[in-house]
Amino acid sequence: MSRCVFCEILAGRLPASRYHQDEHFVGLLDIHPWRPGHALHVPRMHVQHARDLPPGHAEALFGLGVRVGEALRATIPCDDVHLVLNDGPAASQSVPHVHLHVVPRTLGDGCRLVGRLLRHPLTPLLPATSREVLDAQAAARAAALES
Amino acid sequence: MSRCVFCEILAGRLPASRYHQDEHFVGLLDIHPWRPGHALHVPRMHVQHARDLPPGHAEALFGLGVRVGEALRATIPCDDVHLVLNDGPAASQSVPHVHLHVVPRTLGDGCRLVGRLLRHPLTPLLPATSREVLDAQAAARAAALES
Repeated sequence: MSRCVFCEILAGRLPASRYHQDEHFVGLLDIHPWRPGHALHVPRMHVQHARDLPPGHAEALFGLGVRVGEALRATIPCDDVHLVLNDGPAASQSVPHVHLHVVPRTLGDGCRLVGRLLRHPLTPLLPATSREVLDAQAAARAAALES
Repeated sequence: MSRCVFCEILAGRLPASRYHQDEHFVGLLDIHPWRPGHALHVPRMHVQHARDLPPGHAEALFGLGVRVGEALRATIPCDDVHLVLNDGPAASQSVPHVHLHVVPRTLGDGCRLVGRLLRHPLTPLLPATSREVLDAQAAARAAALES
């Protein structure tokens, strides 16, 4: 059985740039962002579908996503955000562990987003964002979330 | 000033096929679905961004979306769902009033979804789903939500 990449990150066996941690959720930077600054909110509990989270957790995950959208607007070029949950493999869920995407957008960047999404099947072949850049983004976002 | 299409629907001045109504939210069928059965959850309050909803309402909107995902799985060909909030005009928000998309997917329908999204700018020119079909979907979904 292959290991879940989010469970490996949460256990500290794989690196990640974290800007949020609490009892139930962790906020990470995507190393292959759809747009620069793309955030992932991950419950600590390994479940594939939002329906299988404990009562109230899906709601809390989304509320955190809204707050992180504000932190993105405050820290990087970002006019608005997408909040996206791909809830299961038929809905393009790439890791079988619930995760909410928070994707920053700027006015006029639509072609860049579409180009990235069309390259999505090639993701493992695309260059990852450097750890230094991700760590700097995570630190700025953590500070914005606290303020 | 142009009128908000969701406010017109909520006020009963435009038709819609509703499968949910409560004090704060209404669930509608999209007449130009990304995939058949595409649902929209709309707060009664007219605000453009999720941050401007009253405390707890964004969370409740999402929790309702998860429940509707289950109702979709129970009533139409649907393996999984996308839950998508385009939170502002730079994030492809087409109506300046918060709305959560719940989009059904079936395994292998990716090309159809991509084709639909690439035609998105032409939406007003595309044929709308008939009111009869939408009303039947709404009735089945309302029954599934209650059960």
